[in-house]
Amino acid sequence: MDVHMTEQRTLGKQKIAWAKAHMPFLAALREDFLAAQPFAGKRLVMSIHLEAKTACLALLLRDGGADVYLTGSNPLSTQDAIVAALEDEERLTVRARHGVTESEYLDALREVLASSPQLILEDGGDLIALLIDEMPEIAPEVLGATEETTTGVTRLRAWEGEGRLPCAVFAVNDARMKHLIDNRYGTGQSVWDAILRTTNLLIAGAEVVVAGYGWCGRGIATRARGLGARVTVTEIDPVNAVEAVMDGFGVAPIAAAVERADFLITTTSGCTLVTDEVLARAKDGLLIANASHFDHEIDRDALERFAVSRAAVRPGIDEYRNASGKRVDLIGDGEIVNLSAGDGHPVEIMDLSFALQALTLRHIAEHAPIAPALYPVPREVDEHVAATKLRTMGIAIDSLNDEQRRYLGL
Amino acid sequence: MDVHMTEQRTLGKQKIAWAKAHMPFLAALREDFLAAQPFAGKRLVMSIHLEAKTACLALLLRDGGADVYLTGSNPLSTQDAIVAALEDEERLTVRARHGVTESEYLDALREVLASSPQLILEDGGDLIALLIDEMPEIAPEVLGATEETTTGVTRLRAWEGEGRLPCAVFAVNDARMKHLIDNRYGTGQSVWDAILRTTNLLIAGAEVVVAGYGWCGRGIATRARGLGARVTVTEIDPVNAVEAVMDGFGVAPIAAAVERADFLITTTSGCTLVTDEVLARAKDGLLIANASHFDHEIDRDALERFAVSRAAVRPGIDEYRNASGKRVDLIGDGEIVNLSAGDGHPVEIMDLSFALQALTLRHIAEHAPIAPALYPVPREVDEHVAATKLRTMGIAIDSLNDEQRRYLGL
Amino acid sequence: MDVHMTEQRTLGKQKIAWAKAHMPFLAALREDFLAAQPFAGKRLVMSIHLEAKTACLALLLRDGGADVYLTGSNPLSTQDAIVAALEDEERLTVRARHGVTESEYLDALREVLASSPQLILEDGGDLIALLIDEMPEIAPEVLGATEETTTGVTRLRAWEGEGRLPCAVFAVNDARMKHLIDNRYGTGQSVWDAILRTTNLLIAGAEVVVAGYGWCGRGIATRARGLGARVTVTEIDPVNAVEAVMDGFGVAPIAAAVERADFLITTTSGCTLVTDEVLARAKDGLLIANASHFDHEIDRDALERFAVSRAAVRPGIDEYRNASGKRVDLIGDGEIVNLSAGDGHPVEIMDLSFALQALTLRHIAEHAPIAPALYPVPREVDEHVAATKLRTMGIAIDSLNDEQRRYLGL
Amino acid sequence: MDVHMTEQRTLGKQKIAWAKAHMPFLAALREDFLAAQPFAGKRLVMSIHLEAKTACLALLLRDGGADVYLTGSNPLSTQDAIVAALEDEERLTVRARHGVTESEYLDALREVLASSPQLILEDGGDLIALLIDEMPEIAPEVLGATEETTTGVTRLRAWEGEGRLPCAVFAVNDARMKHLIDNRYGTGQSVWDAILRTTNLLIAGAEVVVAGYGWCGRGIATRARGLGARVTVTEIDPVNAVEAVMDGFGVAPIAAAVERADFLITTTSGCTLVTDEVLARAKDGLLIANASHFDHEIDRDALERFAVSRAAVRPGIDEYRNASGKRVDLIGDGEIVNLSAGDGHPVEIMDLSFALQALTLRHIAEHAPIAPALYPVPREVDEHVAATKLRTMGIAIDSLNDEQRRYLGL
Repeated sequence: MDVHMTEQRTLGKQKIAWAKAHMPFLAALREDFLAAQPFAGKRLVMSIHLEAKTACLALLLRDGGADVYLTGSNPLSTQDAIVAALEDEERLTVRARHGVTESEYLDALREVLASSPQLILEDGGDLIALLIDEMPEIAPEVLGATEETTTGVTRLRAWEGEGRLPCAVFAVNDARMKHLIDNRYGTGQSVWDAILRTTNLLIAGAEVVVAGYGWCGRGIATRARGLGARVTVTEIDPVNAVEAVMDGFGVAPIAAAVERADFLITTTSGCTLVTDEVLARAKDGLLIANASHFDHEIDRDALERFAVSRAAVRPGIDEYRNASGKRVDLIGDGEIVNLSAGDGHPVEIMDLSFALQALTLRHIAEHAPIAPALYPVPREVDEHVAATKLRTMGIAIDSLNDEQRRYLGL
Repeated sequence: MDVHMTEQRTLGKQKIAWAKAHMPFLAALREDFLAAQPFAGKRLVMSIHLEAKTACLALLLRDGGADVYLTGSNPLSTQDAIVAALEDEERLTVRARHGVTESEYLDALREVLASSPQLILEDGGDLIALLIDEMPEIAPEVLGATEETTTGVTRLRAWEGEGRLPCAVFAVNDARMKHLIDNRYGTGQSVWDAILRTTNLLIAGAEVVVAGYGWCGRGIATRARGLGARVTVTEIDPVNAVEAVMDGFGVAPIAAAVERADFLITTTSGCTLVTDEVLARAKDGLLIANASHFDHEIDRDALERFAVSRAAVRPGIDEYRNASGKRVDLIGDGEIVNLSAGDGHPVEIMDLSFALQALTLRHIAEHAPIAPALYPVPREVDEHVAATKLRTMGIAIDSLNDEQRRYLGL
Repeated sequence: MDVHMTEQRTLGKQKIAWAKAHMPFLAALREDFLAAQPFAGKRLVMSIHLEAKTACLALLLRDGGADVYLTGSNPLSTQDAIVAALEDEERLTVRARHGVTESEYLDALREVLASSPQLILEDGGDLIALLIDEMPEIAPEVLGATEETTTGVTRLRAWEGEGRLPCAVFAVNDARMKHLIDNRYGTGQSVWDAILRTTNLLIAGAEVVVAGYGWCGRGIATRARGLGARVTVTEIDPVNAVEAVMDGFGVAPIAAAVERADFLITTTSGCTLVTDEVLARAKDGLLIANASHFDHEIDRDALERFAVSRAAVRPGIDEYRNASGKRVDLIGDGEIVNLSAGDGHPVEIMDLSFALQALTLRHIAEHAPIAPALYPVPREVDEHVAATKLRTMGIAIDSLNDEQRRYLGL
Repeated sequence: MDVHMTEQRTLGKQKIAWAKAHMPFLAALREDFLAAQPFAGKRLVMSIHLEAKTACLALLLRDGGADVYLTGSNPLSTQDAIVAALEDEERLTVRARHGVTESEYLDALREVLASSPQLILEDGGDLIALLIDEMPEIAPEVLGATEETTTGVTRLRAWEGEGRLPCAVFAVNDARMKHLIDNRYGTGQSVWDAILRTTNLLIAGAEVVVAGYGWCGRGIATRARGLGARVTVTEIDPVNAVEAVMDGFGVAPIAAAVERADFLITTTSGCTLVTDEVLARAKDGLLIANASHFDHEIDRDALERFAVSRAAVRPGIDEYRNASGKRVDLIGDGEIVNLSAGDGHPVEIMDLSFALQALTLRHIAEHAPIAPALYPVPREVDEHVAATKLRTMGIAIDSLNDEQRRYLGL
């Protein structure tokens, strides 16, 4: 192993240790899992943004008895230092590298799926897509899967509607402790962390446009205001738009909003938001970051048509200039910015989301077989995670007495 | 008519005109309804907090063809000036007066129900309760009802569970444009408006406890922080509690929280929150206001046991002292504070909520008969209200193009 | 005394008792003053917004030995209930009435000055103006005066520059505990309290223009945002303007800003801000409130030219319509809105500001004669007030140890 | 030059180009300075945190005619990539390296001073200290100096009081455009940028203690709240403490506050704040970051006594454990955190602060000789910087007309 690799490994191990020390929930689960071995003898495939915190989750599931096959969920979000740090772990096979091509990325997914898993932990829906399109023969073996993104759940719902869902999938993203917490406070902070460190620019007094006022968008807009920005929201849902207005944000169509914007953050889980018109009307120097799972909100063809030159102007920032010299700066190459230009969600957030994942996977292992369908996370898992979080923070709450329960008809 | 009554009438008419001028949505609906007469020949009973804005709604429904029978929904929330102003309106019968006893209040409900209505507009569930318990014979005539409070929907759900719901009821409170907007921004502002005008005390630097972190509680807590308070939330739901923590609020059991509180606002829709223990541990001078529909969160017996004296110390504030001289101040006699000590929700909020009501009542009139059950407001009504609101504010938003709809599987 | 007067007196006494109960600082001073009688045998003239809290201050100074001659400081801010309540107090002469004309207002000032006071408590500078222009013969008797407004201090500074200041005046407004606290948190809250109760309109989602980003303007803008508004600031000082931008507010010239404004609050202490052009460009329905001491920011002549009709549309709101039907609504007749349409500053704020006044007046009584000039409040008075406030709130802070003092060169 | 150096140089040049592109003010000044050559033939010594933005300032002053001698102002804040990028610039001599010892750091200061400068740009006061204590012979040559930190101005004031100031020094820190903007919005953002990127921990719901509520402390506390934290302020000045309370923050003595703190940020410009008692009472896992110029607020001896072990747990974080296993984590080795663990202030902030510096240095060059004393930045420089900033942002403001100026006595 060369010097660089050794350094990477040390850094990776340090980051994993730091994450582990700030994930009290996973620590508690590890003790349970070591004793109970809920996944004993099972193969478990994970596709996930491979960094320190997800490494902790993989190790936890391994400690719970699974043979874990681990790969990335995005070509740019894998951290090589973490891959290096996991290299000699037992019963943990890693197939991932930072900066792979799209086709290398898919090959890695195929490779881990070839282990024919009983359990799948999914982030974005690419594994299930392969299961449907290319590897239907291994589906019968799968007891169930979990999916943690808005994007993934949207795809799964479409497949379910078409009758193509090959196995039971639990929509972890729809758990209250996931979308209310992770999407809002996790994405809200980590997107700005990534932008701050990458740009060194001032947010106070800046004009920020947030495209999409779902849970992620709310978090991003709230934190932007917390940093002193003036925020304009773009939406397609009128109720969300009214909420944004009442929350004190501006609301406008995206092409109008970018005319005075310093930053544009896309977080709609949709596609082709940054169009020819948006680029044409953008203020000179607009910085664009994408906070959705995929980079489909950036219309690459439009960017191609817009730019006569492209240059790396700072680590993590590419500058596109059009014929008249107007600049548009793309952060993290348009990939999900908190991972492509940062360290992903804060550790404590992932402690919660991964507890949901681990407990839901245990639920699958305990209740299999389960008919192919999209399921919500069991309510008791959701509330158990919330209650445990409060306990680890030392916070007590009230409970209903009999009179109150009766009054409320419970 | 004596001088006082004339003054009251003038004030009432002025307030109604002011409200009408700031309710562009109802103004637009009035034109539609005058032309289409959706309620022609129907009797419509309304129980509602009777002030200027609700008067506008009653007049709108009357203009839509209904014979309207109007009464209050709380003994203290009726404004006599408004009753006076409505006195000589045609096809609008009012049975309400400020400060009636509980039994006079119920008698007024019985009286308007005796008209045997086809349509019911309900606020809290008391009309339906009478329909079930005392006047089942008029239920078959009822085409449907709307209910706009959390409290009312909770009761209706219980009755539906027991198979006792006597007619179709639409849970207006569950419409996104109702609970996301009215409960949060309407209650949030109007509760503090009422407290500010009644107390003349400083909120900046004060310790405020908000009991309940539902949509109303979120609004109240957010506005308290906006006024400079430090806020502690009490909850029984662990997920809500985690959200409150992440929103930057303190979270504690209510009996602990009141030890350092200057203000306690109850908004749980539950009962007996202000108990012997809470009163015993309260900081000297604690001001208590209730923001739920009913005053059941104040345990009157506990207050009785606590106090050796009671005195009105400012209009709208009663001060209770215990044997050792500790003071607890109750605002608006514990009745819903934004109405008992203020003018209720801001006008523009009611423009939205009443548009939901009016359009849902039209939906009932158009689609009857509808089987007895609790129904959501039709999604298209909800979105139509939001889209119209944006239009009246001069705000445009984006819409999905074909490619984007395809991508999202719509 | 007729029934109405009796009611007024009862209400006035109740309000004074409420204020007294929430002014712990004045309560503590009263005990000191009763014992030490710092103003024994002195005549003290006060011109002040006459409501419950200022009544408490007058009573305190009286209890400290002074013969107090009390009048208003604005034709609209006197509350008759308070005047009635003070009627039979000893050594306290009141000359004030709500709604007097400008000339009656000035006559009242002349009348109290005719007592030939040793001490003057001034609010806006009108007493000193009379001393200079009309009654120079009584100036030699005056030991000193205090002035608590930005407006008054501006005028005093001009007179000092011209060598016309007739006596020592202490600029209470310039004390840190005054302008940092009273102007920001007192004005910030009470302006919105007054607007909320007078309009019953929604602030969330509204466009608010704040003219002037001094300490009052900061408070008003901050609270507007806290209520959910989008805020634009207008300024003439470029540094203040940059601060407003960095605080996340919009900044624009006033005539441009009103084009999309729902509310305009003036707080510059200047004049003729609401001009023909502002009225011409204002959005239909603009509500205007003035938060400066004088109403000079509203150009009455311009309003005259603008309007073809004027009507009272709600208590405290006059609506002006121009020839094309556009409406501009003026709250509290353009007089300082927190007093003309509300109860003035929160009680606890005045506890602080009045402690500054009372302690500065004692300082004058103890240190006279003092040469005519404008003086700052002694630093130890300022810090004593802050330290006492913290103590009454039960808050402890750190102090420097010897090593730290040495390090800081103190 | 080895590969690593080449990479460093490229990165350094990229960062400088990025900064230059986002400093429109310096760009405009460069054109003026190139033409006017205000510093022609002068030697100018700069001690400053050496990173991309300060490099732009050095290049600007060089372009204005000066021979620039450049060194760091803190052993840990120099970025080697920037040093490498400046290597072959003409008339620009650099003496600085990241991670030097305290004595190497001082030697570099001595070395640049040995050039016997006419102009000094100072950051913290170390150059002037050497001028006084070791190199008085070169003082007569010095036309004047500028100082930009609170810490430096505090030291200069002490020296002035003792009659030891060797030359005219302009307190750039006291300019409104410096302390109101740079200290609040610059420090506020960059401290959290550094902490976020270094820890990857969640701020929402965390308890943050900010020691010191001066302009830097206000910025840090405001941004902490903007990120969702609950904030407690510690102070020694009672007026600052009351302000913090009214701003909605908790206030407590530091030793009490750390008992429940997740983060402690020191920003008092004082010394020995993190004492034995603070470490003894700290919550397990407390993260400490220092945001003052010097690291004197961390009592190193106390830390020594506390810890039985110390380990690097993540790049930029050292963990100290006491005998019972309690952990205290120190970020950036206790050196000024936004520079030791980040990229310093946002670019646009430095554009303003450096414009103040450059224009004040030009003022010195134009007005020399100036008697040794501490001077404020000329008011017209301050306002010119603000007005230019507004213009570069495309923001217009109002100006006083004659009537208004007369009314205000100007």
